Amino acid sequence: MKSRFDVRNDRDLTMLVDFYELTMGNSYLSEGVGDQIVYFDMYFRRVPDGGGYCIMAGVDQLIEYLENLRFTEEDINYLRSTKSFSEKFLDYLSTFRFSCDVWAIPEGYPVFPNEPLVTVRGPAIQAQLLETMILVTINHQTLIATKANRICRVAGNRPVMEFGSRRAQGYDGAIYGARAAVIGGCSATANTLAGMMFDIPVSGTMAHSWVQLFDSELEAFRAWARAYPDQCLVLIDTYNVLKSGLPNAIQVFKELREQGHEPMGIRIDSGDITYLTRKVRKALDEAGFPDTMIVISNSLDEHIIKDVLVEGAKINSFGVGERLITARSEPVFGGVYKLVAVEKDGKIIPRIKISENEEKITNPGFKKIYRIYDKDADKAIADLICDESETIDESKMLTLFDPVFTWKKKKLKRYKAELLRKQIFKDGKLCYKSPSVMDIRQFAQEQVQRQWAEVLRFENPHNYFVDLSWKVWNEKHNLLNRYSDEFSGK
Amino acid sequence: MKSRFDVRNDRDLTMLVDFYELTMGNSYLSEGVGDQIVYFDMYFRRVPDGGGYCIMAGVDQLIEYLENLRFTEEDINYLRSTKSFSEKFLDYLSTFRFSCDVWAIPEGYPVFPNEPLVTVRGPAIQAQLLETMILVTINHQTLIATKANRICRVAGNRPVMEFGSRRAQGYDGAIYGARAAVIGGCSATANTLAGMMFDIPVSGTMAHSWVQLFDSELEAFRAWARAYPDQCLVLIDTYNVLKSGLPNAIQVFKELREQGHEPMGIRIDSGDITYLTRKVRKALDEAGFPDTMIVISNSLDEHIIKDVLVEGAKINSFGVGERLITARSEPVFGGVYKLVAVEKDGKIIPRIKISENEEKITNPGFKKIYRIYDKDADKAIADLICDESETIDESKMLTLFDPVFTWKKKKLKRYKAELLRKQIFKDGKLCYKSPSVMDIRQFAQEQVQRQWAEVLRFENPHNYFVDLSWKVWNEKHNLLNRYSDEFSGK
Repeated sequence: MKSRFDVRNDRDLTMLVDFYELTMGNSYLSEGVGDQIVYFDMYFRRVPDGGGYCIMAGVDQLIEYLENLRFTEEDINYLRSTKSFSEKFLDYLSTFRFSCDVWAIPEGYPVFPNEPLVTVRGPAIQAQLLETMILVTINHQTLIATKANRICRVAGNRPVMEFGSRRAQGYDGAIYGARAAVIGGCSATANTLAGMMFDIPVSGTMAHSWVQLFDSELEAFRAWARAYPDQCLVLIDTYNVLKSGLPNAIQVFKELREQGHEPMGIRIDSGDITYLTRKVRKALDEAGFPDTMIVISNSLDEHIIKDVLVEGAKINSFGVGERLITARSEPVFGGVYKLVAVEKDGKIIPRIKISENEEKITNPGFKKIYRIYDKDADKAIADLICDESETIDESKMLTLFDPVFTWKKKKLKRYKAELLRKQIFKDGKLCYKSPSVMDIRQFAQEQVQRQWAEVLRFENPHNYFVDLSWKVWNEKHNLLNRYSDEFSGK
Repeated sequence: MKSRFDVRNDRDLTMLVDFYELTMGNSYLSEGVGDQIVYFDMYFRRVPDGGGYCIMAGVDQLIEYLENLRFTEEDINYLRSTKSFSEKFLDYLSTFRFSCDVWAIPEGYPVFPNEPLVTVRGPAIQAQLLETMILVTINHQTLIATKANRICRVAGNRPVMEFGSRRAQGYDGAIYGARAAVIGGCSATANTLAGMMFDIPVSGTMAHSWVQLFDSELEAFRAWARAYPDQCLVLIDTYNVLKSGLPNAIQVFKELREQGHEPMGIRIDSGDITYLTRKVRKALDEAGFPDTMIVISNSLDEHIIKDVLVEGAKINSFGVGERLITARSEPVFGGVYKLVAVEKDGKIIPRIKISENEEKITNPGFKKIYRIYDKDADKAIADLICDESETIDESKMLTLFDPVFTWKKKKLKRYKAELLRKQIFKDGKLCYKSPSVMDIRQFAQEQVQRQWAEVLRFENPHNYFVDLSWKVWNEKHNLLNRYSDEFSGK
């Protein structure tokens, strides 16, 4: 979904691959398996910050990347210079046409560990080549959308503005981070480019430098009121909030009102939030400005916001910066991209990656995901990972079981089973249209409301069930037993 | 410094501004102060991870941005659509020519809290407009270069490869993160685009998917040996390191040697590093392959690397991913950009930002930085922040003093005083040529060696002295006293 404005940042990121994706491609080709059809799943293993769910994000950028996937002559020259590739492989790259099938969970859905967010089916060389870009795209935006959602839920109905560009990890950290923050629930961003690219609201007022430029704070506020008489929101902590900023703001607000304008409010960017906002609110109310806003913006995160609201801070809106845009408390989203099947003679053969660490063992095969809802409450009960060939018949009873303690079962009668994923590319052609960012934001809020309160809980949430069908479970355990039998004698 | 290869990622990031930089610009103009000359300093307050120093990085990208700074018609249309700007201001933007002076500490230098890494002098509208881009550029790359330097110092003479693109915060997190990681000391990156853009070594071998694609691990290793007989490094933990990967690797290494090739080594990406590498080293040595490499790559950081080396792990090289590319332990670099002076009638008038938090008080005025070295040892003693008008005469004794406990003094006789910063733009024209990334890497290593061991210490390093000249100290305290006198009576 493009903005109404032409944006000049359509980038060719074809070369953003880990080098081994190319050396493997080179070897797939020389071994004659370059065009063998394979299946890769992208999934994650753990929700950051101990939360109950993540918010899927990044699909639209994945689409942009896949649509722009081609190697230029310059790319080929560079690769040749590394002396790591055959001319045959370089020829392949320079003429290849993207031909994979891709499925993804649409942006805005709550998503859970171990379910494939993205699945790629296609020739080995191609499917392998996408690894880094699929991961960096989905990992980054899902991380930030998830963090933003935590922060916005704690802020309740107070708008949260994304203010973090300056502390982002690179330009795209700022740009796509702002996009993901809005998907997660932020009302606006300070990042003007993101506003332009994604048609999302931008906001911002003044910095300390505005105040410092003038000979006095009062003069600076008056100048601001002249420039923005109907949107006059002033920053009151350049010198001293209570002794300087607040009285100067009130004076200018009175002058504004005499001129027929209502002031917007004040922002505080330092100091003890609870103490200061209570003092400021009282003074503003007493001065006759009960409708002015108090905006706070000092290294905030979900914990500080929760604490100051409990303490009775008087806040109308939050500007959240570095701790949101970098997901500071847990800045890595550990999505992985694993081979799960290969096709041989038209048959899909599941593959597994084993690990001493049970949670790192992959779910083999070509799969689909149903989200199962309680029909009456319209709340999600579980996600069920099935083999692609399976179909749920809602008229029949459905039995879910715990994939580790398999005797723990749940039988469902009144349920809805919705397929969670959409095909976004078919034989290399785009077959999906992304909604606008603001529509995704709305969709995310609706879908979060379809989760039970236990899953939404801030601390120690209920572990949402991501279950396997018997077919997938059996496939997995057959492979596990095969390797266990092979190694246990050694 | 451009790569030998044309890279298609020259981006127009003019619109990557916080919206308030534009609303302030609009108001500077309407208040008639748009062309008033102002001075901004970019600096940071604290070294991440409790380290003793940071490694300056990002100047070359700052240059690219400043050289591309212009607003397109589309940008202007977008800004007009926000209904926040006068036509006069939009006219100004569409025709403005960048005319600031910019000074920066060259990339690769160890840098310290509270010294201005970048200073901008120019018309208020312009200097304000650069805030976000200067911060995001220097904050991000300095963060990653600093983290990489910590990791590489712990790894000693074992090469560290940057492997983190998939977990980076966005594409630029991966691309410029790889650049910064190499500046900090990494020997290579897996990010092919970064390799191409910055002429830095790329490396990579195989993923688990390579092994899984084949019907057996042995077959997969043999295929790899055919494709890369002289660079055969195999990943041995897809199924079981000791029972499967290791014996299969040894068998293929023997076959390789029979064909006249020497194997390169193995990589392990999971499990107990110390235990496994000792077992693997012993087995490889006994099988006649003592020169093969053991490469490790599983969620590493400086602490894990330090621990496993102390425990006697047998490792030749490290691949470091998510914890480097996101600086996971401390993912925010808190650089700020503050107004420090304005020019009136040709005179420079210092400005200050006051805070309850003493460390947040700015150093006012237009300043320069000398790095003071012990002439005999060629080790850095302190950085001295002087007024731009001051000059150090090395033939005279120099007195340094603690800016808080001012009676603590140090008198120096045999010293060298080197100016730390270079002017990079003069009246909006570039007047500096960036070295290549590999040259910056070399320079950083040399400059780190010019620090005393106490500053380089991994835990609880000595606080390097960043001192003020008496002139700067007096300027600051005059302003502080003025505001204190003004508010203390209230």
